[in-house]
Parts: sequence; C-alpha cells; structure tokens
Amino acid sequence: MTKRPIILVTNDDGVEVQGVHYLASIMEQFGDVFVVAPQQHQSGMSQALTLQMPVRVRKHKDTDNLHIYSVSGTPVDCVKFAMDKILPNKTADLIVSGINHGSNSANSAIYSGTVACVREGAINNIPSIAFSSLDFSSEINFEPYKPYIEKITKTVLQQGLEKHVFLNVNFPKPENKIMGMKVCKQADGMWVERFEEKVDPLGRTYYWLTGGFVNDEKDNPETDEWCLQHNIVSIVPLKVEATDFQTIQSLQNLNE
Amino acid sequence: MTKRPIILVTNDDGVEVQGVHYLASIMEQFGDVFVVAPQQHQSGMSQALTLQMPVRVRKHKDTDNLHIYSVSGTPVDCVKFAMDKILPNKTADLIVSGINHGSNSANSAIYSGTVACVREGAINNIPSIAFSSLDFSSEINFEPYKPYIEKITKTVLQQGLEKHVFLNVNFPKPENKIMGMKVCKQADGMWVERFEEKVDPLGRTYYWLTGGFVNDEKDNPETDEWCLQHNIVSIVPLKVEATDFQTIQSLQNLNE
Repeated sequence: MTKRPIILVTNDDGVEVQGVHYLASIMEQFGDVFVVAPQQHQSGMSQALTLQMPVRVRKHKDTDNLHIYSVSGTPVDCVKFAMDKILPNKTADLIVSGINHGSNSANSAIYSGTVACVREGAINNIPSIAFSSLDFSSEINFEPYKPYIEKITKTVLQQGLEKHVFLNVNFPKPENKIMGMKVCKQADGMWVERFEEKVDPLGRTYYWLTGGFVNDEKDNPETDEWCLQHNIVSIVPLKVEATDFQTIQSLQNLNE
Repeated sequence: MTKRPIILVTNDDGVEVQGVHYLASIMEQFGDVFVVAPQQHQSGMSQALTLQMPVRVRKHKDTDNLHIYSVSGTPVDCVKFAMDKILPNKTADLIVSGINHGSNSANSAIYSGTVACVREGAINNIPSIAFSSLDFSSEINFEPYKPYIEKITKTVLQQGLEKHVFLNVNFPKPENKIMGMKVCKQADGMWVERFEEKVDPLGRTYYWLTGGFVNDEKDNPETDEWCLQHNIVSIVPLKVEATDFQTIQSLQNLNE
C-alpha cells in the first residue's frame, strides 16, 4: 500500500473561519490533512515572523486523517511551526493556503499572509498553492470552486512544480457563472493608500489604513485582474528568486 | 536654483537606533531628509501592513532640511504614511532604509522589514536602496561604510533604476578590512527554523523561533553570501515582478 500524501492546510484569516475547513475537507480525499492556522485574523501580514515574543499552540482535533492546530503567531509562523513540531518527518507533500476571504491578485500577493504561506512552502521545496476568493463574506458558498481546486491539486500532486515556484489561485465571486480557468501573470499596478484621520474619545488623533488598487495593465488579458473581471479563475505561478539580472549588468560601474 | 531631492529615510529597527540617524546624516548632503521610522523594533515584519488597528504618529524634529517622525505600525506602514501625509507632493526622489543592525542577504530579503520598505518604494516607482550590516551591535561604528553609501546613492540619484527594481546592499562587519564592492545575485538557500520549547512560571508551554541559514550556493562567487564572507560589500538588484513565465507554459493543461 502506498503512503497517503501529507498535506498541510493553512490560511491567514485564522483557524475559526470557514475557508480553511472547507479547503481541508477537499484535501482529505488526497491525503492525511494537518490544519495549522493562526489563532487570530492575520490579513496583510505578508512573510512576517514573530521574533519579539514567543508563540503558543493549541490542539483542536487529532484523528487519523485530520489534525487541527492553531498557533498564536503569523501565518508564516504556522508553516514553520508545523514543519518543526507537527508534521511527520518535518515536511509535507503539498501545502495549500486559504480559501482566503478576499482576493489576492496582482501585487496583493506581496502583502498577503495567505500567499506568504505557500511562498514559504516553495522556499522549502514543497509544492504549494494559495486559494483566494473575491468574496469577503464569512458566509460565502465555496461549492462552485470545488472542481477547480480538485483539478489544480491533482495536477500539482502528479506533475509537481519547479523548484521555488508556487501557485497563486484567485476565484471570481461564487454567485457569478465561472467562465473558465487560465494560467496567467500577475497584473502590474499598485495600491494607492490613504490614512483616514480620526480622533479618539481622549481627543488624540489616530489613522486607519485604507486605499484602492490602481491597475496599470487594465486591458491585458494575460493578467489575473483581467481574468477575474471576466469571471475566469486565475492561476499565477510565482517564484521566490527576485534578483534582477539585467540590472546586475547595467550597474557594473559600482563594482570595485 | 534647482530643487534639492526629497529623500525618505526609514528602517525596521525603530526610530531610536543609531543606524537610521547615521544614514539620515549621510543623506543630508544629497537633499531634504524625512525620517519616518517605526516607534518600536519591527525586525522580520516583511511587507506587513497594520490593518486590524489604527496607527498613531509622533513628530520628533522639524527643521528646514531634516524632519523626523515615528509611526506606531510596521516598516511598510511608515513608507505608506509618509507618502500620504508627510512628504511634499506625496512622493520622494529616493527612499533609503537602514542601516539595519543585522544582515539581510540571501532570502532574508523576503522576511526583512528594512528591505520591504524599499520594495514598497519600487512598487511606487521611486528609486530605493536598503542598507544592512552583518553587525548586530547597537554600538557599531558605521564610518567604514560611508564612502560606499555615498557612491551607491550618487549613482542611483544620477542613473535612476529600472521600473520596479530596487537595491539590497549588505556590509561586512566594520572591523574587517573591506575588500571591495560587487553587484551580484541573492544566494539561494533557506532558513531552517527550530522552535525552542520552554515553560512559563504558570507551567504553560511556549515557543521561541530560532534557526540558521542553509546556503545552497556556498561556492558561488556571484552571490551576496559569498561576497560578505570575503569582506566584499554586496549589492543585489531585486525586482517586484514575481511571475514565473516558464511555468505559465508548462501548466497550459490547466487552461479551460
């Protein structure tokens, strides 16, 4: 009998939200599932690590095929903790993250904790996939996404992924008819932020971060943003390597 | 008379450390300097944003050529806040971050708040440079780094950088004789983490993150790690774009 794959499931919305348990339920058909998720909501935490304080861990469920833990730190802490202390042989055959309540397309992938978890997987040479939905609702019906998640997962389990490459999948809102699925690039653009100024009951000023994404590739059908606007599931392969080799050439005058 | 450049100086070690003020003092010769740094130590915060709570801001100094503020959030919050509320015309001609107390070579660049600040600059099309030292000491003598910082800064102010490209500079320990400077790639490898298990006075278990970097390119002289081991200043050009275009081709079977 061949051994069932070990699958780590995590997210950045926290262990209590629906998305991570829905994703775990799909993964149970593919292998033994370890859910290791943050104890609290951790959106926008990127690849952050908890270095200034310790973390604590809770075990929520421990059956043969499904194990659920929560960690008091960041999303990436969860992946690192799972590898050191929870997973058999300190590794997994697959890491999946999500389903995130809210999209992580374009360069939201840089700020997202959901995506950071699977970047962490790719750094450790584990095939890894992030799943996010354009829908922010906690009551969302994820059923329309199921066949797409199954197809992508099967493909990655069979084909693997190149070293240090991971997948960032985003879904249109589930109430819209899904028009297909496309492997594409992340749209170029940026978040233009505003800090809303407010005054607390003691008369002191404070600021809340808010803002909107400005898409510099609005009309490019090869981008994730375009796909999502056309109700197409987007799959963006991302890599860990970030060196810009062209600039190494153009800055030779700095060598000494 | 031509206008002096506007230079934003930030870090992740916080507004109180020596590194950021030393860097600001070098920058004053090149332009009008705005220091906007975190109120507290924020190492390992990567590109994290403060979304779950508000931030507060303090003004520490406000002269003609030097303005110092601190923000209660993450390093990247500082850059975003500076752009929205502090900098004239909501932009800068240059963003520099550091000098970090501790190295940010290889893929530490992914977890570093110091590097995240200049990635944020590059996303916003502002030429940006991160400076870090292998020395963790708060009492470090930065003087040996000065001519290198000046040369890199002058070059970037004159030549600019490609769109969405930024520089990650690391310095050997200052007590060693610096043997040169090289534009190179980030070394491939990973942090292998361990969580040290301890017990608190109430008998409850907690964990501290620790670990070490495993270099998969130990003998490659084109990497930052190799340079630093040979007391050479490393300059790695990094880019924001992370799509792996080869994998878009190899996963065409997922399109539907």
